[in-house]
Amino acid sequence: MNLKQVAGEKAASYIKDGMIVGLGTGSTAYYFTKKIGELVKEGLKVKCIPTSKDTKKLAKEWNIPLTELAQVDHIDVTVDGADEVDPDFNLIKGGGGALLREKIIAYASKKLIIVVDKTKMVEILGKFPLPVEVTTFAWENTLSQIERLGCKATLRRSADQPFITDNDNYILDCQFDKIENPAELNSKLNQIPGVVENGLFIDMADLVVVGKDTTVEIVEK
Amino acid sequence: MNLKQVAGEKAASYIKDGMIVGLGTGSTAYYFTKKIGELVKEGLKVKCIPTSKDTKKLAKEWNIPLTELAQVDHIDVTVDGADEVDPDFNLIKGGGGALLREKIIAYASKKLIIVVDKTKMVEILGKFPLPVEVTTFAWENTLSQIERLGCKATLRRSADQPFITDNDNYILDCQFDKIENPAELNSKLNQIPGVVENGLFIDMADLVVVGKDTTVEIVEK
Repeated sequence: MNLKQVAGEKAASYIKDGMIVGLGTGSTAYYFTKKIGELVKEGLKVKCIPTSKDTKKLAKEWNIPLTELAQVDHIDVTVDGADEVDPDFNLIKGGGGALLREKIIAYASKKLIIVVDKTKMVEILGKFPLPVEVTTFAWENTLSQIERLGCKATLRRSADQPFITDNDNYILDCQFDKIENPAELNSKLNQIPGVVENGLFIDMADLVVVGKDTTVEIVEK
Repeated sequence: MNLKQVAGEKAASYIKDGMIVGLGTGSTAYYFTKKIGELVKEGLKVKCIPTSKDTKKLAKEWNIPLTELAQVDHIDVTVDGADEVDPDFNLIKGGGGALLREKIIAYASKKLIIVVDKTKMVEILGKFPLPVEVTTFAWENTLSQIERLGCKATLRRSADQPFITDNDNYILDCQFDKIENPAELNSKLNQIPGVVENGLFIDMADLVVVGKDTTVEIVEK
């Protein structure tokens, strides 16, 4: 098994009968969702909420029972990946482009478990370009406003076209190198009109499952 | 002339040759845009940026030269309406549903002139329901998160369907009654994932033109 698979499958051990579960997006969360599909086949009773259209498609293929956030008053556990995790469990997410739905679902979850391979654990966030979801209207202007916060921002592309999110917005990938104060940056980004959401997840993760070769390390706050 | 016309037309006196001008949306800004159309016919040289599809349509009808925010590095003056204005020039906007584009354009403007009739001047914001633009995904959940800040929120409808903004989002009209600290509320709303933007315009307006019967009062900070 690779590191992502080790971490993703381990996280499935936190899921119990009767839970409402958020299904993350990305290469490590993929293995979690796949494992849930196997457990459902063996009799696990859960209702799941996918964070993206891609994850929804996978969950349907694997016959995982789905519900919608609007139909429930909370989510018990969400398991999702991350692009960077710092020692305070602040995260950068959104490399896969699903940050808005992931953040809405994480915010509604009692417990957020992050699954990553060991390469994602960092001392300081920012080497990974921070994804910022912006409205398509006047995005060039929004880019300028974001760059004033100290980064180089680039419109994400897919082939020759701008990448379009599940919510029909654009993504700007913002190279900060070092984010000294993630909470402050999160707040400042959200004050810029045109910014829909950004990939900083502050004080949201409760537990991190880190894939290390054939073992996993469980890190709790 | 009605109060809105008095105020809208007066604001046109601030517009000079060579300016890049933001054109607001709503019943008072309408008279400003109309007046600009007349002045352009008489020789005024400006380039204008509309804050909504409706205003763009009007501007085209009146042969007002248009440009786009992406094509300019700043806007000299934007003239727009408001639903409420407090003594510190904090505003509630978005009754017309164009708050996101209005806020992006106001943010990029060197000078923001607000045109209102006298009924819009209030001691404390909040009697007018605060419009909050939210993503359609899981909007019911976003509504619950917003109500925790102390309001009753209602999905805006147009006929029997949810009202759709120019950016394909929904609007929640949030009845706070009294907003004691508008800057703090603005920040808290923007931290909720699913909130795209809200109708509080804090520390953005430079001048207010108030229509009072046949006269106008110019209020400056």
